[in-house]
Amino acid sequence: MSFSASVLTLYPEMFPGALGLSLAGRALEAGTWSLQAIQIRDFTTDKHRTVDDTPAGGGAGMVMRADVLARAIDHASPLGDPRPRLLMSPRGKPLTQVRVRELAAGPGAVILCGRFEGVDQRLIEARGLEEVSIGDFILSGGEPAALVLLDAVVRLLPGVMGNAVSGEEESFENGLLEHPHYTRPQEFEGREIPEVLISGNHKKIAAWRREQSEGLTKERRPDLLGTQPLVK
Amino acid sequence: MSFSASVLTLYPEMFPGALGLSLAGRALEAGTWSLQAIQIRDFTTDKHRTVDDTPAGGGAGMVMRADVLARAIDHASPLGDPRPRLLMSPRGKPLTQVRVRELAAGPGAVILCGRFEGVDQRLIEARGLEEVSIGDFILSGGEPAALVLLDAVVRLLPGVMGNAVSGEEESFENGLLEHPHYTRPQEFEGREIPEVLISGNHKKIAAWRREQSEGLTKERRPDLLGTQPLVK
Repeated sequence: MSFSASVLTLYPEMFPGALGLSLAGRALEAGTWSLQAIQIRDFTTDKHRTVDDTPAGGGAGMVMRADVLARAIDHASPLGDPRPRLLMSPRGKPLTQVRVRELAAGPGAVILCGRFEGVDQRLIEARGLEEVSIGDFILSGGEPAALVLLDAVVRLLPGVMGNAVSGEEESFENGLLEHPHYTRPQEFEGREIPEVLISGNHKKIAAWRREQSEGLTKERRPDLLGTQPLVK
Repeated sequence: MSFSASVLTLYPEMFPGALGLSLAGRALEAGTWSLQAIQIRDFTTDKHRTVDDTPAGGGAGMVMRADVLARAIDHASPLGDPRPRLLMSPRGKPLTQVRVRELAAGPGAVILCGRFEGVDQRLIEARGLEEVSIGDFILSGGEPAALVLLDAVVRLLPGVMGNAVSGEEESFENGLLEHPHYTRPQEFEGREIPEVLISGNHKKIAAWRREQSEGLTKERRPDLLGTQPLVK
């Protein structure tokens, strides 16, 4: 049973996009996961294929209609579909590596990409959408955010990364930012690799990396200190 | 003088990707911005076109070499190039709408997309790279993050959104999440649009929306309360 992603969008041609290449692309070809991009406009009923309307109460922009989106979702995810239904939205809960792992362990995801001002709130409630944010910035639509979410999930699917469990991820386990990396050449523009790293003393190396991680986290992301680990 | 983006990547075919469509794609065609995707591998000097090597001090994965990346950066961004040099990395400072606005007001960006375990630290220091994170999750590489960053920036370039200054963004100005939206139909599956929104009383509508925004922010993102506004 492979991971099944259904993306509801006004721009199905944005998919698979970057996910059709590299690790995710090879896994897609191998059937480790599947991706269905569904054109929301196919679920309109009027001649102009209208998906949006002006906001009740006034204001800028347009709002995506609950009835059109409901038909699209019910087509992509009929009753009994065990997959979570996500709405990419800056109002959502910030995506974390913990949630990414949960999604990767599940059957897939139905992902609605909002556009314009947003989505009718009644649709969110009636279809139990989980609002997910990838950050405190505003995109032209949910599509780039969906690409990011799927990329994060797909790399965790069995077989995608091979045995290369990422050290980057391991470092996240402590809720800390990663220590600096170095590789050959030994000297680069007069800068040497720190001596401890070529000492061969694994205990000292581990201690140095830990110290670097803690220092960097304190400096850049004090908000992470003393919080939940980012990976269970 | 249009916004000029140079992306350094092992997967130049991922660009423009989603940025070639919709608003960003039309702006790209119109010359409002330009995008150059540069193959890092073209700056290797060995037969195997090697871009990475094992981490000094041991550990999982591979590290991107400083010398190869330096040649790629120096080609894309010679001395005197006023554009900031960004490195997409989960170790970076979280991207905010404030930074997005700053970038959109500038001449462009040179964006290095890391892959594998990361990038040699000496390259980051020697070339003054600004590490930027789009969230506390791990991607297969910096490319999806670069797509997100550019999408956020491009929509703010003059002429891209037309006069449709987004209300979503306005709401972010208060450092609050956005209030719920509603549009026709008046009734959806037995759910009505909240009465206040069809009252025609603009003062009451504004007060209700503000209250909803505050409630939602308190519930979902208490970290935002009392912090800097997300947009200057």
